[in-house]
Parts: sequence; C-alpha cells; structure tokens
Amino acid sequence: MINKLVEKIRRTQAPVVVGLDPMLSYVPEQVRDKAFAEYGETLEGAAEAVWQFNRAIVDAVCDLIPAVKPQAAMYEQFGVPGMAAYEKTVAYCQSKGLIVIGDIKRGDIGSTSEAYAAGHLGHVQVGSKTLAGFHEDFATVNPYLGSDGVRPFLKVCAQEKKGIFVLVKTSNPSSGELQDRLVDGKPLYEHVGKMVDEWSRELMGDAWSYVGAVVGATYPEMGRVLRELMPKSYILVPGYGAQGGRAEDLRNFFDADGLGAIVNSSRGIICAWQKETYARFGADAFAEASRQAVKDMIADIHRGLGL
Amino acid sequence: MINKLVEKIRRTQAPVVVGLDPMLSYVPEQVRDKAFAEYGETLEGAAEAVWQFNRAIVDAVCDLIPAVKPQAAMYEQFGVPGMAAYEKTVAYCQSKGLIVIGDIKRGDIGSTSEAYAAGHLGHVQVGSKTLAGFHEDFATVNPYLGSDGVRPFLKVCAQEKKGIFVLVKTSNPSSGELQDRLVDGKPLYEHVGKMVDEWSRELMGDAWSYVGAVVGATYPEMGRVLRELMPKSYILVPGYGAQGGRAEDLRNFFDADGLGAIVNSSRGIICAWQKETYARFGADAFAEASRQAVKDMIADIHRGLGL
Repeated sequence: MINKLVEKIRRTQAPVVVGLDPMLSYVPEQVRDKAFAEYGETLEGAAEAVWQFNRAIVDAVCDLIPAVKPQAAMYEQFGVPGMAAYEKTVAYCQSKGLIVIGDIKRGDIGSTSEAYAAGHLGHVQVGSKTLAGFHEDFATVNPYLGSDGVRPFLKVCAQEKKGIFVLVKTSNPSSGELQDRLVDGKPLYEHVGKMVDEWSRELMGDAWSYVGAVVGATYPEMGRVLRELMPKSYILVPGYGAQGGRAEDLRNFFDADGLGAIVNSSRGIICAWQKETYARFGADAFAEASRQAVKDMIADIHRGLGL
Repeated sequence: MINKLVEKIRRTQAPVVVGLDPMLSYVPEQVRDKAFAEYGETLEGAAEAVWQFNRAIVDAVCDLIPAVKPQAAMYEQFGVPGMAAYEKTVAYCQSKGLIVIGDIKRGDIGSTSEAYAAGHLGHVQVGSKTLAGFHEDFATVNPYLGSDGVRPFLKVCAQEKKGIFVLVKTSNPSSGELQDRLVDGKPLYEHVGKMVDEWSRELMGDAWSYVGAVVGATYPEMGRVLRELMPKSYILVPGYGAQGGRAEDLRNFFDADGLGAIVNSSRGIICAWQKETYARFGADAFAEASRQAVKDMIADIHRGLGL
C-alpha cells in the first residue's frame, strides 16, 4: 500500500491528503435538511448528512489527490450511526481509487492493540469466515504505551501490506508538554522517531517503509530533524492551513525529489465553501469549492517546495 | 459520577471493576452457535454472540460490583456491528445500576478531542435535538498530545458530572520505553501524574476528583509514588491477575481507608469458565463461574489490603 501511495503521489503530482473531518456545521443546509427530512433530527440523520457531504466532496476531488484521511472522532461523536458513516466513507473512497488513512490514533496494550489492528487494517475470524471491520489502508497509532502497543499493528501490516503512521510530533500547541521534554539530552519525539526508524526498517516496501510518522507542519524545524532521523518513513503532515502551517515550511518534511511526505488539509478543503475566497461558489456548489481549494493547495505546496 | 462510584464501592465493599473485553474465543460454543444460527457467520453474528455473553455475565455479577470496563477495541474489531454491541452493553450495564468506564484510550488535538469527548461522555447537537452517542460514565484518555488533548474532556466532564482516567503508567511490559524515561531527573510518568494532579483539583467531586489516572498493578512501586502524587485522583488499576499483578501489591494504590483505587480484571472473570479452578461450572454455567471468580477476586483483594 505504501508503494501504491507513492505511485499515486507521483501520478497526481499532489503530496496531499484531504481530511474528511466533518462537523455538522460544515454541511450546507440543503444537505442537512434532506438528511433530516429522511431520518429525522437523529444520530442517523446526522450520519446521513455527513455521509452525503463526504460523498459529494470525494466525487469532486478524487481525480486530483492520492489519499483521504477521515478522522474517526468526527464520526464517533454520532455514535453507532456515525461509525456506519465512517465505514461507508472508507469503502466509497476506496471504490474511487483513493487510499484511506484512518485517523484513529489508537494504541493499547498487546492483546488489545491486536484487536484494534485487526478491526481497522486486518481481519477477524468469525466461525469459518474471515471478515474485515473498518478496512482502512493506513491507520495512525499512538506510541505512549511503547512497542508492545505498536507491534501488533506491524504484524497486521506485514500480512495485509498496509501501513501505519505513528504519532511522533503532533501539530497542536501543547504537543510539547510531553513530546518536547528532554530525555538524555534529546527531546522525547526524537526518541520516538528513532523507534519509528527501527520499525520502518523491518517492514519495507520498494523504496519506502510501511511504517510512517506523523509530524505537524506547525513545527518545521523539528520536521527537518525528524526527516533525517527516519529516512525510510513517509511523514504524514497535519497542521497545514487552518492550524497555521505554511507551504514554505513544508520543504523540511520532504526529500530533495519531492517525495517522503504527504500534507493533510481538512477544514481548508471541506469548509472551503464557507470561506470568503470561495464564496463565489455558493452553498449549492460546496463540492466545487472544495475542488478549487484542492487545486490551490497543490499549487501552494508546489510553490513552497520550489517544484 | 465519581461520588456515585465511591458510594458504590463503599456499599459493595468491592473496589473492583470487571473488564468486558470479549474475544470470540471466550464465548461458549452454545452462545456462539445460537448467534450464528440467527445472524450467520457475519460481523453481526459475532457482535450478537459477544453481546449475549456480556449480558449473561452482567446479570450474574451486577449486584457484587460497582462498575464495568468494556474495552472498545474488542468491539471495534467487529466493525459497525461490534460498536453497536458496545453501545448496547454500555446501556444495559447502566440499566443494571453499574457505572461504565469506557476503555477507549482516545486522545487527539483540541477540536478532535472535543468530538471524542462529546461522543463518549457528552452530547451532540443535531438540529433542535441534543443527543448522546456512546454515553459511558467515564472514559480512559491518552495524554501524549498534551493538555489541549485532555482539556476538552475536562470541559465535558464538568458539564455532565462524568469523569476520565488519564493513562499515566500502563500495565504492559514495554510501558517504560517512553513512560519511564527520565525528564529533569524524574520519570515521565511522574510528570504526567503531576499534570493529572493539577487537572484533578480543577474538577472535584465531594472527596475525590472527576479526573483519575490509570496505573498498572504490575508496577506497585510506581503505584506508591503516584498515589502520593495525585491525592485527589482515583486510580484505575489494570493488570491484576492474567497480567501478573498480585493482591499484596495493590496496597500501594489505595489510601489507608481502602479507597482511592479500583482494580480491573478482565480475562480472570469473563474467561473463568475456561480455567481449571472453575471447570466444575461447565460451559453452560459460564456466567456462574464469572460470579464465583468475582467473589474470589474481592476476597483476594480484601486479603491483600488487610481489610
């Protein structure tokens, strides 16, 4: 799957992932009204609104980008119907040829991480049948519990040819409270980066590893260090746009050939229709506004990288 | 909810939480067969088997204990139907008067943690309706992203009178890879414990805080230090039994009056029928075996605490 991701990035010339993180307030009124008319003001209605919103955006942008990243929290907030919309979104994106990075940030002790890995990237055995739960292509993983929380994911990735992105340095303002603390003279995130590097070498695709890392666009200097420390790992870069990461800061996350990183934007794309820059599209053409925002993001990143 | 938890612990004299972490292999054949006969060898069939298994155990033990802790991973592995079984289990346990600690170990950046907090402990607004997703009473939270990943949970807890248990020192063998690293001469888990202590004082119930901590029974010396460091926080203690934590080691996690901690056992209770000690019950009386195992666990803990 990492080979497929790299190939799709080359083909689209877009090291870009669209974050499908829908709040109900991002969904235009006509889409919400239709969903509520059918399912009522219920969790099912909310899930339907979110799913129809996603579908329209995916249809509008799927030829431009290699991958999407649905954020599990935004679906879990709507309970079981929300998780059904999540699964439907994963399946639909895959049917459109997109690679799906499940932003689930799971991580637990051994046997429990096995269950998360099976449910999101692998299979479970049910009687004589082998079945898949949420079937994303990649998942994000939290390393706080150490390697026996991560290894079950590695095992499933090896079997399924899927991948993970381990949280190393997150994009949020308080990420440094633990991640930047000095351990043996180096920040904790470098130690985690070193662990990611070791795991990455155990699970190689053609040129890149199935084991990647999350490093926030909001910390470009740390990005430079981590790019060198994990030469085989693709870096998933959140924090561009709404969170303040700028295109010129992204160079540090990439190799000289423009590979090695993939930049996420969520609100910048899916809420484009609510922004002044794209107001001309209007609420009815919200998906077209997202398409234009993706094109603008790709151009901005090319500019930032000097491509 | 922390007041209710403490009151129920006093009443039952059982500082015990049963972990509802069902693997399909734990479910007796007759329960599986019945579920598969109705729903086929499908995710729905697996979820039904797990739900019927849970229900029988809950019926058998609910008068003995204050709380249960379903582990989200074990349900997520069965996809959307699994999450439906999770929600059904939460609701059923609550209807039986049990407090439900959702072992979800979520943690993300601000706006995303808000969605997790809303979905698990709070409410979402859908049109004119205010609805709840998974509605647990407590949730476990991963602190790797720092305080802006935890604060949204605090906000919801304050509104809903619910609580969290923050991962401080987990029970697994590799937990020390990050958690034990020395920062300014002290292990990282102490720094996290300090953060928990600060959060705990912002959100007090009568005698205890809505903000608790997870500290593994497998690390009793660290338990002693953390008990002192977080005097207002209840400690959720996993790792007793199957993972190797012993009753005599638990004293460190408790106050002198036998409060301050609640000990989880999962496999030791729900798989009791598969163990030699309880083989006399047979597969048909698996829930009775769990009841006996709960009684034995309570007695063992009383002995360990010298109560």
